[in-house]
Amino acid sequence: MYQLNLGKLSLADFMQQYWQKQPLLIKQGFKNFQDPLSANELAGLALEDDVESRLVECRDGNWQLETGPFEDFSRYGDKDWTILVQAVDHWHPPAAELIEPFRFIPNWRIDDLMVSFSTPGGGVGPHLDQYDVFIIQGEGKRHWRVGMPDASLKQFCPHPRLLQVTPFTACIDVIMEPGDILYIPPGCPHEGISLENSLNYSVGFRAPAQKDLLTGLADYLLDNDISGKRFSDPDRNLTGNIGAISEQDLDQVQQLLVQLVSDRDKLPLWFGQYITQAKHELDQQEPDPHYQAEEIAEYLEEGSVLARLGGLRCSYYQTNESSDIQLFINGTTIVLPAEEQMTAQLLCDSKRIDQQQCLHFTAREERLLLLTDLINQGLWYFEE
Amino acid sequence: MYQLNLGKLSLADFMQQYWQKQPLLIKQGFKNFQDPLSANELAGLALEDDVESRLVECRDGNWQLETGPFEDFSRYGDKDWTILVQAVDHWHPPAAELIEPFRFIPNWRIDDLMVSFSTPGGGVGPHLDQYDVFIIQGEGKRHWRVGMPDASLKQFCPHPRLLQVTPFTACIDVIMEPGDILYIPPGCPHEGISLENSLNYSVGFRAPAQKDLLTGLADYLLDNDISGKRFSDPDRNLTGNIGAISEQDLDQVQQLLVQLVSDRDKLPLWFGQYITQAKHELDQQEPDPHYQAEEIAEYLEEGSVLARLGGLRCSYYQTNESSDIQLFINGTTIVLPAEEQMTAQLLCDSKRIDQQQCLHFTAREERLLLLTDLINQGLWYFEE
Ligand SMILES: O=C(O)CCC(=O)C(=O)O
Ligand SMILES: O=C(O)CCC(=O)C(=O)O
Ligand SMILES: [Co+2]
Ligand SMILES: [Co+2]
Repeated sequence: MYQLNLGKLSLADFMQQYWQKQPLLIKQGFKNFQDPLSANELAGLALEDDVESRLVECRDGNWQLETGPFEDFSRYGDKDWTILVQAVDHWHPPAAELIEPFRFIPNWRIDDLMVSFSTPGGGVGPHLDQYDVFIIQGEGKRHWRVGMPDASLKQFCPHPRLLQVTPFTACIDVIMEPGDILYIPPGCPHEGISLENSLNYSVGFRAPAQKDLLTGLADYLLDNDISGKRFSDPDRNLTGNIGAISEQDLDQVQQLLVQLVSDRDKLPLWFGQYITQAKHELDQQEPDPHYQAEEIAEYLEEGSVLARLGGLRCSYYQTNESSDIQLFINGTTIVLPAEEQMTAQLLCDSKRIDQQQCLHFTAREERLLLLTDLINQGLWYFEE
Repeated sequence: MYQLNLGKLSLADFMQQYWQKQPLLIKQGFKNFQDPLSANELAGLALEDDVESRLVECRDGNWQLETGPFEDFSRYGDKDWTILVQAVDHWHPPAAELIEPFRFIPNWRIDDLMVSFSTPGGGVGPHLDQYDVFIIQGEGKRHWRVGMPDASLKQFCPHPRLLQVTPFTACIDVIMEPGDILYIPPGCPHEGISLENSLNYSVGFRAPAQKDLLTGLADYLLDNDISGKRFSDPDRNLTGNIGAISEQDLDQVQQLLVQLVSDRDKLPLWFGQYITQAKHELDQQEPDPHYQAEEIAEYLEEGSVLARLGGLRCSYYQTNESSDIQLFINGTTIVLPAEEQMTAQLLCDSKRIDQQQCLHFTAREERLLLLTDLINQGLWYFEE
């Protein structure tokens, strides 16, 4: 378990002064930091087909980028490269724990845990991201510089798949040591250059762009075969300009779209499904044979503890206290009765359901059946 | 050339009293009607790969539906079937002329010309459509019945791909003869049963549903790599309910979407491109070798006449008299200077550019080059 230590700063202060506003160095944000994985384990993940990884190398000012799966790393030598592995929380339960201290931001805003291993001199170069990130320094030391957003900076590609930014003025310039944490808001230029072999953990956030939202809604309408209203024009006047698209026709097109995207009955449902879809492969393994509900009840009563599949995205929505709860798990919706808030919270609020909390699920047949189904899909599992 | 004859009714009256409101029988809407094609020619089109066709048969109350291309029709006997061919205007220039008299409705609202040939007893059964249609009776006689929209009618499928409706009360019940025209608004139940071998021409309309519009906009954003703004939450307050999707977050999602679909700068552009995309194959044939601009000028000055490719969708949009004109042809945009309204109109307003009108294009180099390009793409062609 990792515990975030902001020193004199309260979480509320952090939200007010830094979140999405300015970068922050949190010296010893994790005290006595222990890496959840080793450089070797990370390299092992980068060999796997299902895992997304990149290796970035800079030799004599020449940037190279290769994508995994990799076969071995011996040919890269002992300096000037870094390997970055996406969604490590999907594959490595101890590493996934690094996300938990940041769950003061709602689940749906959290993306994944990226882990990088860098040799001395290694880094991806100065760049901007569109998302907030907390970068945790693990083993080794790394020189990090972070600047404020600056419209005069230019982005360019030293390699077709590597986007960098022109030199920036740093407001944070620090040699990070194990347990130090950097918070970087979207648009702040940053660059990390390793001084030693070094591990970095990036807890990244998700912030859909207008296009993503619209595309998500379009997919939802297609999947659910929702056509909506058709354009209609019973009041159309005769016009000589039959080639012209008129303002009145465009008004109606706009109105049909505005009405569709403002449908507050459908909005929470599609958004919940959309935003809980995993962007990376999940390590979902159905237990074989499936469990019977009675078996599960027995294990829970004996004190077993349940863990949520790494990277599984869970949220819920309830219009008001007396309405049904929509529980969104991995892009699907489960409807719970209004009074089942606790059920939704136990499933969504943390990665682990402890011994005491587990008993909530044995107290009611429907809850036990829900849990049985989730376990049999491989979405929750008994933790040893 | 066909001329629509509404008798005592003016076009303005038609729009006010009937368009999208109630069905209308226009006896002898085309006087001395001559079929633009024969049943044999239609059957010939149904043999072709690029042409969409269906054959519907009802034997002893059993509905059958087959889709083309067909090989021959001898096995269907001499009664109780009908063959329907979509987008005949794309393949048969004389038949395409049947659409022209209905161009008092803007181009973008017009869809295609469907032509059916029915043997005695033939028809697709009673059904509803979501679009307006003018059905013209060609050769032969057919019994048509049309009713008003009626929420008590039930739709059902006597065959997986045939949607029919339960029996309805007719407000029009007529034996149609060559040149008679029926106007049927969306949602009005209708049924035609042939009394003799009979040809029917359906001028259909296009009315995008909310889903179509949203999907079209999503495609436009993807094609043009427009991401728009990202979700941002610098004012987020701390919450204990990290599993919940909050009303405030949904408010912002909604606002991002509303803003995107209300962008009146982009709306005309994407809608114009979207709505001029052909739904059916075009018979587009590039001339080989390409024409030189000078050759085209010569032909036009010698009195050649140009025709627009059948089914080609053309519209334009101009915000105000002094702004550029966006000319939409087959899903692409060409920007014309503000004063080129006549150019846009000549291209969009009718299927044919006559001898006199052609000279407009030789009067200016840019117009001639535009026309040359359109001809070399096979979108306009010299008519014999
Ligand atoms: O770990 C790295 O080398 C890059 C980290 C980074 O730039 C990020 O997480 O935004
Ligand atoms: O011609 C036919 O048989 C069917 C015509 C029809 O129902 C239509 O065009 O909507
Ligand atoms: Co970064
Ligand atoms: Co119909």
